[in-house]
Amino acid sequence: MADPLFPAESLAALRARLGELPCADEAAEAAARDRQANLTKPPGSLGRLEDLAIFMAGWQGNPRPRIAKAQALVFAGNHGVCAQGVNPFPQEVTAQMVANFSAGGAAINQLCRASGAELSVVALDLDRPTGDFTQELAMSEAEVLEAMARGAEAVDPGAEILLLGEMGIGNSTVAAALAHATFGGVVAGWVGRGTGADDAGVKRKIAAVEAGAKRHADLLDDPFTTLMAFGGREQAAICGALLAARFYRIPVLLDGFICTAAAAVLTRLDGDALAHCLASHVSAEQAHRRLLGLLGKAPILDLDMRLGEGSGAALALGVLRAALEAHNGMATFAEAGVSGA
Amino acid sequence: MADPLFPAESLAALRARLGELPCADEAAEAAARDRQANLTKPPGSLGRLEDLAIFMAGWQGNPRPRIAKAQALVFAGNHGVCAQGVNPFPQEVTAQMVANFSAGGAAINQLCRASGAELSVVALDLDRPTGDFTQELAMSEAEVLEAMARGAEAVDPGAEILLLGEMGIGNSTVAAALAHATFGGVVAGWVGRGTGADDAGVKRKIAAVEAGAKRHADLLDDPFTTLMAFGGREQAAICGALLAARFYRIPVLLDGFICTAAAAVLTRLDGDALAHCLASHVSAEQAHRRLLGLLGKAPILDLDMRLGEGSGAALALGVLRAALEAHNGMATFAEAGVSGA
Repeated sequence: MADPLFPAESLAALRARLGELPCADEAAEAAARDRQANLTKPPGSLGRLEDLAIFMAGWQGNPRPRIAKAQALVFAGNHGVCAQGVNPFPQEVTAQMVANFSAGGAAINQLCRASGAELSVVALDLDRPTGDFTQELAMSEAEVLEAMARGAEAVDPGAEILLLGEMGIGNSTVAAALAHATFGGVVAGWVGRGTGADDAGVKRKIAAVEAGAKRHADLLDDPFTTLMAFGGREQAAICGALLAARFYRIPVLLDGFICTAAAAVLTRLDGDALAHCLASHVSAEQAHRRLLGLLGKAPILDLDMRLGEGSGAALALGVLRAALEAHNGMATFAEAGVSGA
Repeated sequence: MADPLFPAESLAALRARLGELPCADEAAEAAARDRQANLTKPPGSLGRLEDLAIFMAGWQGNPRPRIAKAQALVFAGNHGVCAQGVNPFPQEVTAQMVANFSAGGAAINQLCRASGAELSVVALDLDRPTGDFTQELAMSEAEVLEAMARGAEAVDPGAEILLLGEMGIGNSTVAAALAHATFGGVVAGWVGRGTGADDAGVKRKIAAVEAGAKRHADLLDDPFTTLMAFGGREQAAICGALLAARFYRIPVLLDGFICTAAAAVLTRLDGDALAHCLASHVSAEQAHRRLLGLLGKAPILDLDMRLGEGSGAALALGVLRAALEAHNGMATFAEAGVSGA
């Protein structure tokens, strides 16, 4: 299946192609809901597991949804805003962690193995950080389009679920800028400690986002120009992957604050742009809970995690798989000869 | 390894054998904590996954804890208090659901398969319900001892984690009685809808627990006589299994409200009696959150489930396995050549 969106020669061309986004199959959802009502358990007693099975049925267009292939995509990028001292780690750590992903030594490798996801890591021009958004545009239009295309191209059209994650020293500052651009509010409410900023570091993060918001104020009413303003490549790639998944009707497990903030910019394009997405977890990064609330997404897990890399998504995949096992494998009251109430 | 506790000829004999309960290995915990601090992630960023790995290290006495064998035990019993109209389902459903477990058609079968737990179901004299606790003792001393022994004997000494669950029409009323006996408070605060009681059913549940609490007031300062007062067999079996697991130093995943209420009675014996237990989830049954708070247990999952059967424990096992994969499989900063902050 050819990617229906990319490459695109301009943001205007991309916008023209987006049109109406595909929706979930309501008949498959209804059939899955009926099945849940007849399984050998009190109605509703599997809680969110029931909702997850019905959600998957809708997006797969199959009342008995399955996950044979789960794809995990982790996008990595570097950020000019690190010049503002927003992160205690050196930027080289991004490439070092990408090497760690390749060697199989990171958390995401273990968590993908545990839940049966195939992991691919896409490093996006790590030796070419985006512009420092306090001083200039983070990315040109062409750079945003290229990063989105790389995200979209990375999606396997045959995957039955897509897990999205990211890595990039400094990118919790970018996420705060994107969330602020999308939903407004006080900048400090979107800024947290990220990988481990101290109080002074948090102040530098707030100052950077405030400076960026002021400099780029005229770009922030549109998702794509917002990405030009703040970057980064991995955020644009996440948006590209999300749009591609939507066109393939592949449901998505979003990871934590940074992944969700990247996804959130698409809601400026279409309020329903993330209908195919589940919030895998709520991060310990304080702004994530608020962001999920604004997006109307209830997290599957709440485990005080704040690592990124797609770690929460990989963990939630295990819950999703269990939900489908219950949905597909349980007997109905009639099959089991169990009396109803 | 012979069971050090059962059979016991009397509750007094059992009490005498309990003595000091074994504790977690602090050196193994400390070594696991050190390892977590050196893995390639910001310190603490895996949140509860780090705590879970350290907890498992302590109880397994191994800084690199593993789960090769996970045992799930579901105990089933019937309850005389059903004569008070506390449950909309007929009591035959307990045996029908046990047959469904045996045939592999219940939720717990699918969830155990998903997380790799070996399921055993122990049906405890289903044709002989306990006494109606509003009218008489639910169980004799000998019956409590026998059910506890059956629970203890069912524990596989070679298991590295034990999942406990239950099935028994009417047993959310028993659980409310046990929780009220253990922690006091207003009876209505411990009573919920269970499998699906309507408002009138909830009133009957409250009335039954109030009548039982009044009738057996002089028995409720001791965990074992509390079990005699209210039953049931599956609750006593859970207590027996918990004590056996503690002596084998096998960590335990408790399931929902009913399982936790059974376990809670042991805290009257020793405030630390559940130190080897994790709360797998918090149930939609409203009293469970309160009960976990009183026990000082933070649930791993919060998915609006209220099925019992060990379903929450089976689901949490997946998270626990993922926590150990991360703990054991991740590279350290030194191994991966990643720069620290």
